[in-house]
Amino acid sequence: MSYGEVFKILKDKNVNIWLDYTKHEFVQKLANDSLHENCFLNYLKQDYLFLIQFSKAWSLAILKSDNLEEMKIAASTVNELINFEMGLHISLCEKYGISKLDLENTEEKNENIAYTRYVLELGYSGDFLDLLSALAPCVLGYGEIGLNLQNSNPKISMYKKWIETYSSSEYQSVCLNVGKLIDKSFKLRLGENYTNTYKWNKASLIFKKATSLEVDFWNMALK
Amino acid sequence: MSYGEVFKILKDKNVNIWLDYTKHEFVQKLANDSLHENCFLNYLKQDYLFLIQFSKAWSLAILKSDNLEEMKIAASTVNELINFEMGLHISLCEKYGISKLDLENTEEKNENIAYTRYVLELGYSGDFLDLLSALAPCVLGYGEIGLNLQNSNPKISMYKKWIETYSSSEYQSVCLNVGKLIDKSFKLRLGENYTNTYKWNKASLIFKKATSLEVDFWNMALK
Amino acid sequence: MSYGEVFKILKDKNVNIWLDYTKHEFVQKLANDSLHENCFLNYLKQDYLFLIQFSKAWSLAILKSDNLEEMKIAASTVNELINFEMGLHISLCEKYGISKLDLENTEEKNENIAYTRYVLELGYSGDFLDLLSALAPCVLGYGEIGLNLQNSNPKISMYKKWIETYSSSEYQSVCLNVGKLIDKSFKLRLGENYTNTYKWNKASLIFKKATSLEVDFWNMALK
Amino acid sequence: MSYGEVFKILKDKNVNIWLDYTKHEFVQKLANDSLHENCFLNYLKQDYLFLIQFSKAWSLAILKSDNLEEMKIAASTVNELINFEMGLHISLCEKYGISKLDLENTEEKNENIAYTRYVLELGYSGDFLDLLSALAPCVLGYGEIGLNLQNSNPKISMYKKWIETYSSSEYQSVCLNVGKLIDKSFKLRLGENYTNTYKWNKASLIFKKATSLEVDFWNMALK
Repeated sequence: MSYGEVFKILKDKNVNIWLDYTKHEFVQKLANDSLHENCFLNYLKQDYLFLIQFSKAWSLAILKSDNLEEMKIAASTVNELINFEMGLHISLCEKYGISKLDLENTEEKNENIAYTRYVLELGYSGDFLDLLSALAPCVLGYGEIGLNLQNSNPKISMYKKWIETYSSSEYQSVCLNVGKLIDKSFKLRLGENYTNTYKWNKASLIFKKATSLEVDFWNMALK
Repeated sequence: MSYGEVFKILKDKNVNIWLDYTKHEFVQKLANDSLHENCFLNYLKQDYLFLIQFSKAWSLAILKSDNLEEMKIAASTVNELINFEMGLHISLCEKYGISKLDLENTEEKNENIAYTRYVLELGYSGDFLDLLSALAPCVLGYGEIGLNLQNSNPKISMYKKWIETYSSSEYQSVCLNVGKLIDKSFKLRLGENYTNTYKWNKASLIFKKATSLEVDFWNMALK
Repeated sequence: MSYGEVFKILKDKNVNIWLDYTKHEFVQKLANDSLHENCFLNYLKQDYLFLIQFSKAWSLAILKSDNLEEMKIAASTVNELINFEMGLHISLCEKYGISKLDLENTEEKNENIAYTRYVLELGYSGDFLDLLSALAPCVLGYGEIGLNLQNSNPKISMYKKWIETYSSSEYQSVCLNVGKLIDKSFKLRLGENYTNTYKWNKASLIFKKATSLEVDFWNMALK
Repeated sequence: MSYGEVFKILKDKNVNIWLDYTKHEFVQKLANDSLHENCFLNYLKQDYLFLIQFSKAWSLAILKSDNLEEMKIAASTVNELINFEMGLHISLCEKYGISKLDLENTEEKNENIAYTRYVLELGYSGDFLDLLSALAPCVLGYGEIGLNLQNSNPKISMYKKWIETYSSSEYQSVCLNVGKLIDKSFKLRLGENYTNTYKWNKASLIFKKATSLEVDFWNMALK
């Protein structure tokens, strides 16, 4: 469960909030099957709206790329999110009885707005590293949570499907690639001693804030 | 207390959330002197951080202007906010015992992030009308609240200074000018039958959402 | 050779500059095999740099989309451009003896900068319709030029490969889809009487300016 | 004639293109009174359109600022440009017989578009340093040209007014302040060894390209 060097240092530097997020009550209830179904369904609906804004944030990564290789990874991710993941999410929701129309009529909750607009605004006002630091908690956090839950052996869980999605080799491979992109792009711009720079302090603050907004997203989902 | 035609229609269309905001418990406690001082001080600190992002949002109004007249009003507003209001806010805080260093070390709460980043992201992704629809609840709402409280005759209030700021003829004149800018820019772009357009529906949804984020800002301040 | 209603009206309204572009000396020389090879090679190199910025402009279309359907088309286009077209362009260049390193070391000429930055800046400051109006002359103009040249039966041309690319059914199908996207998004936002709006006049001015920047791109290629 | 350390290094590194710009034929003809009046009038008209976009680019500096001090300088500059310089430019034009209506009806030439959209696009996609590197050649170059011409003692020049504007102590003081802002913001973000960083190479390439677009602006003005 290692998605690269930069991510590891960012997590270690912000370990408390990281555990608040990845070991959140919502996640634990998901694993031990005690999560109220309504909470899960509301989460799925909000997550649909989240994915739309999240795809837009990744589109900004294309615009903030400094070379073709970065553009290629960002463009694949955007296309994957919009033209495949969204479809998967819609059909997962259908299995739980939420129609596409339900999804489209869902009102975005303020905690959802807080997180997505924070990332998007940073994508507009910041650079490639700022944006990746804000995207990392979501992409890589879900990978870590997926693996954690898979390892806790949740055979009987009604939320098995969700756990399988994020522990799947496909999703884990996305995480590995994003982790590599983060390592490479930090070193390209800041050099090998990147933790000793002005930008690094900013990256860590962004990572921390984005993680705290993820915690609030789980809090919202439990309400 | 009328800041133009467009604002009036937007308020009437979203009257419930508008009253939740302008008649919020925080506002009422401010008027009858029952607000806990700590709540007020925390509000002032968050408002400092808010003003920084709010000034940035107004900067986007310069970029989204379609003519020199719009640019002039937006640029004056930005300059007024950054080079005067910020100073006033800092000295108001000092009177209440909050130093400039305290302000700079304040951590942005998630409800503050939600509102400011919502407006900023709209400023980046939307057009002039979208942005004005998101800015209006703050600028004009504070004007309305200021007048309401002034009229409720809060002679003994320890929060008199705050009330005077927003009921002052200077601030009221800002509101009148912003109201005129809104009317003129909607009619320029959408014509006289502007309420009958796709953009109008969007403007109303944005106005509603921004107002609901203001309500959450007050909720945060009461915590 | 019809890529939708909006495009047709825009062309008719700006017919002179449109013919300057699509019947440009560069295009005619390409068809009758009288184009100096150096001109063509320099054009290919500049076009590589153009494609990078053009892909970024299409990424802005994802961000400016109002619904999932618009996002899907924009995301596919971006992915197609970055992960496929760029590769095709690189291998086309190789056939003409231009290495990938040559491409990367090419200095962007000012006429290239003028066009791409005009489109990108509009993508940032404008809305979905503004952006599509700036992208249309390139996407659809090349489709029209490709078909024109194909019909002029350029059997012996050394530039056959280029002509085949843009007259191919794959590229023509891209043009048809973009034309449909334009029609649908104009009508969604401006209604059936869209030519009678403030936004329409802006769209036409943008279309005209972008076309004139295409003319300058050909002029540059002939130098 | 020294506007700070960073500017000096950037000029020295790009000395050829810098001289092409600051010693351009247009400038020399302005000084020795041999510039055709029509060239000057056309230049003034294009410069009006330039100033609008340039003010928008400075607005992006507010958005890309990392602290209140940077925001204050950027906001003052924007306000100065839009609410004062524009007025001065309009009245200067009037003296030369160009009405405000003439100015508003002037069509933006492609060389003008190239430069302004290059700077604006960088302001959107880049960070504070990228943007300052693109703005510097214009702000500081005009200051340098103004002083050069003043020192060449152009007593009889009909373009004396223009020369006085840019050699005035007011404008020179703007240049000194912008030079200080550049020094301070580079050192804050990149440290004292800033010339030894990835960002520095980018800054120098941007400075060079922006200067070359200034050269093309003068070329346009001579046509």
